[in-house]
Parts: sequence; structure tokens; C-alpha cells
Amino acid sequence: MEIIKGGVTAAKGYKAAAAECGIKYTGRLDMALVYSECPAVCAATFTKNVVKAAPVKWDRKIISEKETICAVVLNSGIANACTGKEGMEYNEWMAGRMAKELGVDIYDVCTASTGVIGMQLVKEPIERGCRLLCEGLSDSTEAASLAARAIMTTDTIPKEAAVSIDIGGKKVTIGGMSKGSGMIHPDMATMLCVITTDAVIEKNILQKAVSNVVDDTFNMISVDRDTSTNDTVIVMANAMAENDTIKEDSDEYVAFYNGLKTVAETLAKLMAADGEGATKLFTARVVGAKSRQSARILARSVITSNLVKTAVYGSDANWGRILCALGYSGEEFDPEAVDLYIESAGRRLKLVENGMATDYSEEYATQILSDKEVTAVCDMKNGEYEACAWGCDLTYDYVKINGDYRS
Amino acid sequence: MEIIKGGVTAAKGYKAAAAECGIKYTGRLDMALVYSECPAVCAATFTKNVVKAAPVKWDRKIISEKETICAVVLNSGIANACTGKEGMEYNEWMAGRMAKELGVDIYDVCTASTGVIGMQLVKEPIERGCRLLCEGLSDSTEAASLAARAIMTTDTIPKEAAVSIDIGGKKVTIGGMSKGSGMIHPDMATMLCVITTDAVIEKNILQKAVSNVVDDTFNMISVDRDTSTNDTVIVMANAMAENDTIKEDSDEYVAFYNGLKTVAETLAKLMAADGEGATKLFTARVVGAKSRQSARILARSVITSNLVKTAVYGSDANWGRILCALGYSGEEFDPEAVDLYIESAGRRLKLVENGMATDYSEEYATQILSDKEVTAVCDMKNGEYEACAWGCDLTYDYVKINGDYRS
Repeated sequence: MEIIKGGVTAAKGYKAAAAECGIKYTGRLDMALVYSECPAVCAATFTKNVVKAAPVKWDRKIISEKETICAVVLNSGIANACTGKEGMEYNEWMAGRMAKELGVDIYDVCTASTGVIGMQLVKEPIERGCRLLCEGLSDSTEAASLAARAIMTTDTIPKEAAVSIDIGGKKVTIGGMSKGSGMIHPDMATMLCVITTDAVIEKNILQKAVSNVVDDTFNMISVDRDTSTNDTVIVMANAMAENDTIKEDSDEYVAFYNGLKTVAETLAKLMAADGEGATKLFTARVVGAKSRQSARILARSVITSNLVKTAVYGSDANWGRILCALGYSGEEFDPEAVDLYIESAGRRLKLVENGMATDYSEEYATQILSDKEVTAVCDMKNGEYEACAWGCDLTYDYVKINGDYRS
Repeated sequence: MEIIKGGVTAAKGYKAAAAECGIKYTGRLDMALVYSECPAVCAATFTKNVVKAAPVKWDRKIISEKETICAVVLNSGIANACTGKEGMEYNEWMAGRMAKELGVDIYDVCTASTGVIGMQLVKEPIERGCRLLCEGLSDSTEAASLAARAIMTTDTIPKEAAVSIDIGGKKVTIGGMSKGSGMIHPDMATMLCVITTDAVIEKNILQKAVSNVVDDTFNMISVDRDTSTNDTVIVMANAMAENDTIKEDSDEYVAFYNGLKTVAETLAKLMAADGEGATKLFTARVVGAKSRQSARILARSVITSNLVKTAVYGSDANWGRILCALGYSGEEFDPEAVDLYIESAGRRLKLVENGMATDYSEEYATQILSDKEVTAVCDMKNGEYEACAWGCDLTYDYVKINGDYRS
């Protein structure tokens, strides 16, 4: 596998565009389009929130009923959630406008929206946007980057990743973009993600890979425990790499799976590190757990604790809060067996052995925790399974951003 | 029922004391004692965290094996959690010292600790403290208040409540104190609470009343979702009111239950309102739910959302976040049936009808939300059950307090 530059246009046959339409704010990109020259097999995962945005309902229907799609149109500013029947009509209208510009069927177009909940979309800017997007389509790296920028809300950086892999002598490329900074929590969040690949793969195999990858990547990040109404990951595979069809459980499947996971994990970590107000990427790695599920639950409990997150912000080795968060996760374990380490930039310090503090240096602990990327390793000494979860610190700026988000 | 002044010394036969011992900090009260002149029937609930502090383990054993206790000794500064076998020995030593001073059996003394996790207790200050507490015992209202003050950590106000009720012509009194400000979450938190009553009641009936009341009060508050290692609610009933023994499911039981619930609910709300950094008490009332359990889960999901909490801080009627938090609670409901109101000081405004925004005045909404006590009412229109949960806003000061708690 080779990690390469680029995003949604890295794979063969994909184009992207971004446009500034003034949907809610002026002077910023707020619509994006990802388009495949030929119909692409599609798979997706969506929010499990009972309250589902109009585009999520639209896409679920398309992904469940159709083999392929041609495009995904995305907007930021307005989430089109909690907008009732009228919201569904606006969404269908947006898909229809985009389809007409592209000359494809309306059911070839998935939609995604992110932004404020409860407002209706506005037709005039979106109509203009669809026209601009179609005119601006390009397979350049720059077009992909602008699309990644156009879907940002409180994000501070655009998020892209791409890899190329070898499948039976053919080069297969996988690239993606995502957004998400607040309302981010396992089971996905106000996150949107589009991943494109030129691999030849059947729909059910692609869906299996996507579901498993999302579980280990996007579902293992949390900024604030809030699972949003709009979470969407759409993966398109347009077969232009001309590899032999990827079979279930083959070596080729493993290669494809690892490539997809690398793209998704890179995007997921970029999202966690860019959590609202965050100054640090905080990773919890649980090892020695009795099952994979147990390791996942324990790791997520650590990265979602507000008390752990504020301690990470303060570079304070307050390990009691980490043990405490493990303890209320719902998982059973022996607290007096747990070892705890902190790591950053190749440094590693054991804070806890068998549930009690070691004689560690607070000064060195603070040095390690002052890094931009910090990991807590929890050894449960209870089995052979492990899991990683990614989050960020909780800061003044999180409160600032969300205390007056709408104003 | 009459709400009266006072705390743990309001009921007959109880004395309290506070002492300044220098356990972790100097110049502040850090030990407290609640003592009954005659053995008191005891009931309790404890943290469900797998990581349990030494005093929790000690008390669980006493409460499960014994009918009565005489005293509860409490300290702040050090939580005696994650302290291993040595911590258990320190705890037993503290109970023993207190018992010796009081001239009672060591198993007549429950213990409670709150403060930093992972440090061992220190003998010299506690030995002096036990002596001072015994000398200082008094049934005055002031002694009770000082005890409530001595168990504070990041709390900004001492928390006390008391009621008197009539049981078959006899006046029965119930009074209590509690502490807790951070690490507060359903299933209790770094909260300690001692409630005393002079009622005549059997142990199993008292335990039933306590368990049910705790479920509806202390388990319905949240400051930060962090369930601590030390949560303890101990209720003592010393029979000095000489009422006829309270029988299960009798009118007298209902009167006693309501009295106990009022004390517990008052303390719980004081704790939520005094959440770390909080500027407002935020109540979620869910009505029209399909079951009591469903109402409880929905209400707790709303008060624990960081995004809702920051919106409450900003007095921003960002109702989408409330619907979103209902949506990811795990409960099924029809989002397009939900009505949502905000209330404060007798004012009430409907923000959402059938899942969509009404034409409400943002200005008036902000006025209502600017109050010190704010309620969100969620009508699920799905049944007849309701529940209340109490929390607070999430502010800069929460981050400040927890970003450098140990320094």
C-alpha cells in the first residue's frame, strides 16, 4: 500500500467541484459535488440517531435499492434535519436540480447536508450552486481539496486522504474527504464522508468492507458524545481500475480492506484532532482485554470522559480519572490488575501498575502530555484483545464555539 | 409535610461535628462526623463503578451484614480510591480511631472519603481530626452546617435539607447533607450524602425506600457524565420519634417516602445547580413517554448533552440539539410527533410542534433561557409517563476547574 496525495479525485474517473452559493453565510464555499464518469457501485453507513435528516432518508433508500450511483451533492450551512415533509421535498428538489445539470437520473444522485438543524434549505442559492458545480467539475487535486473545504462547518482544516494498492497487477486507488468537528461521537456524528475508488468490486462485498471499516474508524472517535442527525459515509467504486473483481475473503479483499481502512482511519483521526476547540489528538489504546467488544467499550469510555479530556487539556497526569472512566464503562474487570501508560513522540511512562500509582515523575508526565498527540495505554491483563479510540481535549474554545454557534 | 431549616441534626438524637485537620489542604474544614445517640437502622446505595474506593467497600460490608450503625465519619481532600490493600488498611484504621473516640464498636462506624484519587490517607491529621470531631459533637443547626461544609471539594455552597412529617400523630423528622460538584452522573458520582431520621422503620423497608428515592433523585442528576468511585448515600433511622413502626405500602410509608424524597431531591437539585462551573440549574422534563424507564432515559440524555449544555450557557434556544439528544438516547419514538417547550419563572414558550419549529420569538426564548433555573419540557405524545432530570450548563469555568484541579 502506498499513501498518496489527494482526495476524492485520486481514483480514476472521478471529478469534483466546489461552489460559493450563500446558503447561510456569504463569502465561503458551501456546496460540493463528487461525480463519477461512469456509474459507481455504492455502499454507505448512516447515523443511528432516531432523528434522521432528510438527505439521510433519501440516501438510505437509494443505497438499499440501487446498485450504482453517479454523484453525491453536499452542502454546508443548513443540515436539513427536523424539517418535516417540506425538508424531504427540498432535498428531492436539490437532487433533481443536480441530476438535471449532470444529465443523469435523479436516483443516481445522493445528497448530504450539514449545519444548523431546523432551518429549511433555500432554493435560489442551491439552484445557482448546482449550475456552478456542474460547470466547475475537474479531476484535479485542487478540485478535490476545494470540495473538502466546501463541506466544512466549524472544522478548521479540510480533511482528505488517499492510498493506492495493487490488486492482481492492477493499480487500485482509494481516496476520500470528510468533515466533522462538533457533535462527533461513536455511531458517527455531524460527519459527512465521501470515499471514491476505481476498484472493481460487487455491491455486497463493498458494503461489508465499509461497515467493518466504519466500526473500527469513524465509530471509534468522539469529540463530545453527541451523535448527529446527518452522519453519512458514502463509498463509490466505479470499476475503472479494471482489476479482477474482488472476491469475499480473498487476499485481494484484505488488500482492499486495508486500503479503505487506512483512508477512513486517517480521516477519522483528522476529525478527532480537529474537534471543536481541541488542542490535542488524544488516543486511548486498550490492550489485554477479554474481547474485542470489551476493548472497544473501554477505549471509548476513556476518550469520552469530560474529566479525562480536561486533564489532557491541562497536561495533568490525573490517571485516577482514566481508571474511573474504565470503571464506569459497563465492562467488568479487576481494577487491581490494570497497568496504565502515557505515550507521545516515542516517549512512554508507566503511571499505574496493578491499579496503583508507580513512583513516576510528575514533571516528565506533564512533558509527555504537553505534546500535540497523546496516547493513554490501558493494559487490562485480562485477555488478548485490543482497540483504539480517538478523541481530543475539552477546552475553553469548545464552550465558546458551542455557547454561541448560532449567533 | 413541612420543609424546615437544618440538616443532619434536625432529627432527634443526632449530633454532628466538623474539624480542620490538614489532610491535603490547610485552612479549611476537611473532616465531618454524624453521630446518633442510639444505634440507628441503616440503609445505603453506592457507586456502580467497577473501581470502588476503600470506604465504599467498607460500608457495603457493614450495611449488608448489620442492622444498625452509630456514626459516619467523612473526610474531604483524599478519596482513598485506587489505593489497594494499603488503602483498605488506612480506611479501617480511620474507622477504628473514630470508634475508639466514640466508645463504640468499629463496625458501628461507616466511612466516606472524597477528593483526589490515588493518594493514601495520612494518619496524623486524621488521628487529631477524630479527637476534635468527638469533642466538638453538637446537635445544633450550626454543627450540621459546618459538617456539610467540611465535606465540600469543588462545591461552592454547602448542601442541606430537612422536612418534618406526621406519622400516626408523631412528628418524624428527616434531614440530610450532601456534597458533589464534578464527576457527577446518573448512578451517582463523587457524591457523598448522609441522611438522618428519627423514624421507627425496619431495615428492609428503609432500604427499599432509599433505593427507590435515589433512583428518582440522585440518579437523575448529571454534571459531566462521570460516575465516581466513591458515591455513597447513607440513611440512618434511630427510632427516637417513637412512631408506630412504618409498614410496607402503608399510608405512613408513603408519607415517609415523600419526606425522604423531598430531602433527597432538594439535595440533588442543589448539587446539579452547583455543578462545576455552572451558572444555571437545567431541568429536562419528559412527558407523554411510553414508559417510566423511557422517560428517564430521554430526560437524562438531554441534560447530559455537551451541546445542549453549552447552548443553555449561551441562552441559545438551539432546540435542534435537544431533539438530537432525544434521538440518540437509544429510545424509539416518532420525531415528527415531539413538542418542545422552554420554561423559567412561570414563563413558557413552545419552540417545536410535531418535530418542527414554531414561529417563536428568539428574543423571548433568550429571555427565558437567561434565568438561573431553566426547564426544557419534551412531550413525546407517545404515552402517559414522565420523568425529570437535573443538570447544569457547561461553561469556561468547568474547563478551568478540571484543567488544573490537582495543581
